[in-house]
Amino acid sequence: MNIRLAFNRSRLFVLNVSHIKPYHSLALFPSSHLYQADLSNHGSRRNYHSVKTPKGTRDYNEKEMAVREKMFNSIQRVFKRHGGVTIDTPVFELKDILAGKYGEESKLIYDLAEQGGENCSLRYDLTVPFARYLAMHGKELNQYQLKRYQIGKVYRRDQPAMTKGRLREFYQCDFDIAGTYDPMIPDADILRILCESLDCLHLPHPFTIKINHRKILDGIFQVCGVPDNAIRSVSSAIDKLDKMTWVQVRQELISDRGLAPSVADKIGQYVQHRGDFTLLDTLMKDQALLANPSAAQGIKDMSLLFDYLDIFDVRHKMTFDLSLARGLDYYTGIIYEAIPVNPSVDDMGSIAAGGRYDDLVGMFLAGDDDNKKKKKMKPKQPIPCVGMSIGVERIFSILMAQHEQRPIKSNETQVYVISVGDGLLKERMHLAKELWNAGINATFMYKNKPKLEKQWTACENDMIPLAVIIGKDELDQDKVRIKEMTAKNQAQGGGVIVNRADMINELVSRLEKM
Amino acid sequence: MNIRLAFNRSRLFVLNVSHIKPYHSLALFPSSHLYQADLSNHGSRRNYHSVKTPKGTRDYNEKEMAVREKMFNSIQRVFKRHGGVTIDTPVFELKDILAGKYGEESKLIYDLAEQGGENCSLRYDLTVPFARYLAMHGKELNQYQLKRYQIGKVYRRDQPAMTKGRLREFYQCDFDIAGTYDPMIPDADILRILCESLDCLHLPHPFTIKINHRKILDGIFQVCGVPDNAIRSVSSAIDKLDKMTWVQVRQELISDRGLAPSVADKIGQYVQHRGDFTLLDTLMKDQALLANPSAAQGIKDMSLLFDYLDIFDVRHKMTFDLSLARGLDYYTGIIYEAIPVNPSVDDMGSIAAGGRYDDLVGMFLAGDDDNKKKKKMKPKQPIPCVGMSIGVERIFSILMAQHEQRPIKSNETQVYVISVGDGLLKERMHLAKELWNAGINATFMYKNKPKLEKQWTACENDMIPLAVIIGKDELDQDKVRIKEMTAKNQAQGGGVIVNRADMINELVSRLEKM
Repeated sequence: MNIRLAFNRSRLFVLNVSHIKPYHSLALFPSSHLYQADLSNHGSRRNYHSVKTPKGTRDYNEKEMAVREKMFNSIQRVFKRHGGVTIDTPVFELKDILAGKYGEESKLIYDLAEQGGENCSLRYDLTVPFARYLAMHGKELNQYQLKRYQIGKVYRRDQPAMTKGRLREFYQCDFDIAGTYDPMIPDADILRILCESLDCLHLPHPFTIKINHRKILDGIFQVCGVPDNAIRSVSSAIDKLDKMTWVQVRQELISDRGLAPSVADKIGQYVQHRGDFTLLDTLMKDQALLANPSAAQGIKDMSLLFDYLDIFDVRHKMTFDLSLARGLDYYTGIIYEAIPVNPSVDDMGSIAAGGRYDDLVGMFLAGDDDNKKKKKMKPKQPIPCVGMSIGVERIFSILMAQHEQRPIKSNETQVYVISVGDGLLKERMHLAKELWNAGINATFMYKNKPKLEKQWTACENDMIPLAVIIGKDELDQDKVRIKEMTAKNQAQGGGVIVNRADMINELVSRLEKM
Repeated sequence: MNIRLAFNRSRLFVLNVSHIKPYHSLALFPSSHLYQADLSNHGSRRNYHSVKTPKGTRDYNEKEMAVREKMFNSIQRVFKRHGGVTIDTPVFELKDILAGKYGEESKLIYDLAEQGGENCSLRYDLTVPFARYLAMHGKELNQYQLKRYQIGKVYRRDQPAMTKGRLREFYQCDFDIAGTYDPMIPDADILRILCESLDCLHLPHPFTIKINHRKILDGIFQVCGVPDNAIRSVSSAIDKLDKMTWVQVRQELISDRGLAPSVADKIGQYVQHRGDFTLLDTLMKDQALLANPSAAQGIKDMSLLFDYLDIFDVRHKMTFDLSLARGLDYYTGIIYEAIPVNPSVDDMGSIAAGGRYDDLVGMFLAGDDDNKKKKKMKPKQPIPCVGMSIGVERIFSILMAQHEQRPIKSNETQVYVISVGDGLLKERMHLAKELWNAGINATFMYKNKPKLEKQWTACENDMIPLAVIIGKDELDQDKVRIKEMTAKNQAQGGGVIVNRADMINELVSRLEKM
């Protein structure tokens, strides 16, 4: 009863916050044809005596984990291919570290209970902890430079939508490049890494990366006559152009954000543009824009970036979209979101996002500097960063849906040791030990006298490719029978008999061919 | 100022709880010659404007992560060799799930703040969440059987001892076998897995596994005349025999636990025994013990277990220790702790521990069963389990200490692209792209015109084995220079020149030989 009430209360709560755009804008709304998260984990359906996981969290069974680990390994290979190293930070941070970084969304932060110590919160993303890490350890880094990736869980008290894969505990895969370099080179590398990461997952739909530059956007607003203190507010209204029409956004700019209709119309002439890199040529002919220092800098950056992306063979993946603004205040340069090229309207969520944030580390360097020792430990200047975050939960849903027709092998067992006849438990244990000693993944049935049929079934259910079979005859002759479970050749149905001493070599050579 | 006060308060708090033995008894007290966790992460030393990690938590830099991931990978290979699959559960659980499982230690549980929803706590170990998982999903498992491993962080509001590697957020590596099988077979497999796991880490000291059986211990207490309701209390006093003398423990049994001196003396005659499996022969001649059903069952189990451990070649690793009791109430069969065979008294902590717990899953199955649907979802009976947990933080300290003399390569970069002369940024980018396309891990300096010397230094610092070098000459002739950075042969100092078209093949063949 309590639970039901709490659920209703949460729904009401959500009605109030539903207009808030999630940070990093990794919308996690797979369309209905996607893999449906197994609801059995969640109490709202299976609710026996509170034996369930907390709201918005779920368990992952061994088959789901096999898919998830394969996904992480693929992404990690790309990250390492580009020189990435990994670090680890705690799952919770001091509350002060997160304060003032997430704007309105900070109400979604999970706090730990006060238990006579510090005030702490579960991390909301991996970006702010990374900036905190750089502020603490920057001095120890070689030239304050670091290419780091991190795959970890983050926490948001958002309204969960389990069937849509939107959770309160979910993974992010981040790659960030910290340090001062020549312009746009790390930015180009990050975008290449993003493309390689999404490519390696073999998703059913191609993707495009919407890209824009905060300095161009700010320049446009200035040129159109938006007051400086209204720029962020106008920016977040413009960001809605992926879900609303220009007429609707224009109305919001005028009635909610207080712009004059003429200013809104000027903005409209810019932000409805999207296209490939040639859009830059159009902007370069705009004298008003070029005269604005912010816009001019942004245009110069983009021009260089497109050159580099061309060399990296990923320029054609980009959509230069002047309406892309991104929710977060801290971006200072290029911003981007990867979205699937949609087969349906439903599929509009982004699957990765990021941007350049040159001032975030600096937020941790400010403050009282009277203590000499403290001063010594700090990096001398803010460390500029560019990075991206892959929304792996949504990608996981897509990958699970692809598996619906195919069985998933969740173990890595290579050999099942089977006895025919009288159980032969100790002989099976001896064989398993020999296989383990040789580094072969092997198992057997934990029964004194298992039925042959049950052993076959177990071997088949676990999709184990090889069986080593012993019976009284084989034992007497110091031999074993080896059978490939997938052998379609009926003549080989019974397997081949080899000397016990040759067993390991025979198995290794068969495994190598698989 | 606030922080200092909180710190002092915590110390006082700890004085009160210092007698509590940690759950799973994975004491994490490396001796002074071990790797000292990098204190720079912790605010108590670097405390500039609260930019630090919460008390008892720390960051791991890229070199520490390289060591940690290698350790996890080694352990995971062993787990998979024995047919283990992995699952994932949330980092926090409903408070009720953890309630009543940890006895006095439950005061160390981290709670989440009440924010208008459920009451939740960070997980204290991976065992109770696993039992909750089995209670929820047992029906979906094949015959209620599961061999699962899990590597994850757990949380305890213990007094941190950073220099000793005792943290509030730390990893556990667990392997558990759930399901009904024939006696002692999974138990033997778990102990073999434990031995293989510790062996694969190549620790500087050999280890032994102290082993005992709860049923033997309970039988001994009954035979000696301990009242049934005092058994757990006496048991936890006996467990201190690894740190206290018998005279001290005897005194505690009499004054604190209320035993008659004669009863204590009888117990003393049993629990001071430790040795190899032949101790079992002594027990088998003890008619009083054999007449006790609990002890008789325990002795029968141990006899069978030692047989199996002999087949698995790990019997010689065991120390049968009748004083081993383990803190937790829920163990119902064999119990064990792995400890290094000590070069110093300091080194007494255990590095892994576990036991059989047949009733824990049942605790989640109890409760109101009037609802037919609920009943249908539950497993019909408690699922018996045996498992173990490796105290990886302590092992990590030992491994880091071994690395003190040797540098750690934290990246997996194989090739560094270097230019001689005029920068050649775009040419370096082209080369890097070709390498990435071929699946080679490659990087280059993010500078328009980097100095040659700086590129060499970066390549050497990052311990990258191969350099691809281009200058104007090479470019004009469509060639590149390849240099093995570790080549000791001075004649090869400048590397070899190959046609650009042969670059990938040349690099791949050199990498294969490394």
